[in-house]
Amino acid sequence: MRIWESNIRKVVPYVPGEQPDKENMIKLNTNENPYPPAPGVRKIMDEFKEDTLRLYPDPCAGMLVKEIANYYKLKPEQVFVGVGSDDVLAMAFMTFFQSKKPILFPEITYSFYDVWAELFNIPYVRCSLADDFSFVIDDYKRENGGIIFPNPNAPTGLCERLETIEKIIKYNQDVIVIVDEAYIDFGGESALSLLDKYENLLVVQTFSKSRSMAGVRIGFAMGSPTLIKYLNDVKYSFNSYTLNRFSLEIGVEAIRDEVYFKSVNEKIISTRERVKNELLQLGFTFPDSKTNFVFATHEKYNAKDIFLALKENNIYVRYFDKPKIHNYLRITIGTDEEMDALLDFLKHYIGK
Amino acid sequence: MRIWESNIRKVVPYVPGEQPDKENMIKLNTNENPYPPAPGVRKIMDEFKEDTLRLYPDPCAGMLVKEIANYYKLKPEQVFVGVGSDDVLAMAFMTFFQSKKPILFPEITYSFYDVWAELFNIPYVRCSLADDFSFVIDDYKRENGGIIFPNPNAPTGLCERLETIEKIIKYNQDVIVIVDEAYIDFGGESALSLLDKYENLLVVQTFSKSRSMAGVRIGFAMGSPTLIKYLNDVKYSFNSYTLNRFSLEIGVEAIRDEVYFKSVNEKIISTRERVKNELLQLGFTFPDSKTNFVFATHEKYNAKDIFLALKENNIYVRYFDKPKIHNYLRITIGTDEEMDALLDFLKHYIGK
Repeated sequence: MRIWESNIRKVVPYVPGEQPDKENMIKLNTNENPYPPAPGVRKIMDEFKEDTLRLYPDPCAGMLVKEIANYYKLKPEQVFVGVGSDDVLAMAFMTFFQSKKPILFPEITYSFYDVWAELFNIPYVRCSLADDFSFVIDDYKRENGGIIFPNPNAPTGLCERLETIEKIIKYNQDVIVIVDEAYIDFGGESALSLLDKYENLLVVQTFSKSRSMAGVRIGFAMGSPTLIKYLNDVKYSFNSYTLNRFSLEIGVEAIRDEVYFKSVNEKIISTRERVKNELLQLGFTFPDSKTNFVFATHEKYNAKDIFLALKENNIYVRYFDKPKIHNYLRITIGTDEEMDALLDFLKHYIGK
Repeated sequence: MRIWESNIRKVVPYVPGEQPDKENMIKLNTNENPYPPAPGVRKIMDEFKEDTLRLYPDPCAGMLVKEIANYYKLKPEQVFVGVGSDDVLAMAFMTFFQSKKPILFPEITYSFYDVWAELFNIPYVRCSLADDFSFVIDDYKRENGGIIFPNPNAPTGLCERLETIEKIIKYNQDVIVIVDEAYIDFGGESALSLLDKYENLLVVQTFSKSRSMAGVRIGFAMGSPTLIKYLNDVKYSFNSYTLNRFSLEIGVEAIRDEVYFKSVNEKIISTRERVKNELLQLGFTFPDSKTNFVFATHEKYNAKDIFLALKENNIYVRYFDKPKIHNYLRITIGTDEEMDALLDFLKHYIGK
């Protein structure tokens, strides 16, 4: 080892889902939305003054912050935006989890949490889930330096009731509690309604799933002005200008077009419910998903084998080779046609 | 103070230059390029398939990395891209400066360095500059945990000779040395030619200045495959998907249009040289700038007064209220017309 290597931070990075780019592939592996972004985006691109790209964007992302605040009936001082919710969560880990006590998150959850904890040297403990993957509230009553969990949880897809979420927050008012709501728009109940009661609560959402903009990179956090101020201080100490001029404009458009947003989510929810029924008939079981994916397992068939067979047939789903979930497939809800292709394959595979 | 506040990282953030947006203002305060980005950008926006925004971008930013590597005759494994050079530098601080020994940077320099050092709890020492603002090489011979400096330096504008840069690197082969070349395309000699010799050297550049894309947020680092690998590991542990689909495409276009790139830089250099002469005639002095700004001072007139008077007249330049440079103005090189307006004002102000 060269001497300079001793000064280097060495980490085991998060591994994102494959991003294959094959002709006619059916891509159900990274929970992208099968429908395009709000139709107004085209007009924005047509009318965008490319000359303005020579100028820095607004470091406060004011127009987008204001639009999000309006939509969720908050004050602009309660909204923070970043380069996707991963950027927002990374900043939040850096800002809020500075205790020497361990932070808590579920044993099965978004696999970036432990990566961030390792990156920032934050100790952590995983809280158990019940056999049906639901939260065990008592496990969040131990001493801790902060709490984070997704609701609905990923990759299980299960959504906890707001009552459960509030019990956890209520018990943990001396630390920051982050509720990661990447999938909330697909039928769950947001913790946003608790912001007025708990100054230590941060709710994180994203444009990547329900707003069809994974390729734009916009995520946001909502919380008390105190939390948002601390988060912005760290953000401005890291990178002043994050969202580019183009992202700011189309982000605003996505928020404004509520009709399109709701219609897309309704379509996905309706496809999801149909897919659930069909999967049940094929002998699959799954936690009751409130997301744009289903986390399915089959008693008689090996998930990894199905995953590989699907891949052979140009259908990509996500498989996690991890304890307790190694016989599950995470299947994104695509268009009806895409799901029919998947279901046809599974019918054939299972021999029904 | 609420108990949860004790777990929060508290920092004094970097303060970016004002981003006023007034009609007919002359904006010479944040070193933006007065000319638009490569003309091909319009075509890319027209032809961009907005439907693809629903999909994640390539986490490796492969198309842009490859294009930059081609242009600079490097291997793709030697190139890292991020959301502006501030993002790249923040990642580099986090990755490479993990020693308990202080890192070194010039006493007058980019004012984000000490902000990042504070953010990541990295000890630092400032190295003296000579009276003419040039580097004092011997000051980089003390024990350290890493070195960073801009070349040309900002806000002085002074460019050190490659020989000087190499002496510093040669003496410091046990730590990572970062040369921040945000302004190198305006006439300086890049340290890129030293990459073959020094595996511990990282060169950082940006699309914000010479490529007229401050509003797009693209920065990049070039170094040995070993350094780039470590940097990517940290990046993938922070945020997998940073550059959006749109930025990737227009970044490639900016690199490909070398003719436009060179013509813009020649125009700025020519305007700069003319402005230097005129400023001299007005009694201003300045380090010999190789950037797209001039760092000027006047024996008889107070810089802050001039700054405020210019602002009154809708002409924005940058003023730093800091020791040793509180009588200087950092004036971005704009179009010839913009600089004429500035010079006319100064002639009038000075009474010539």
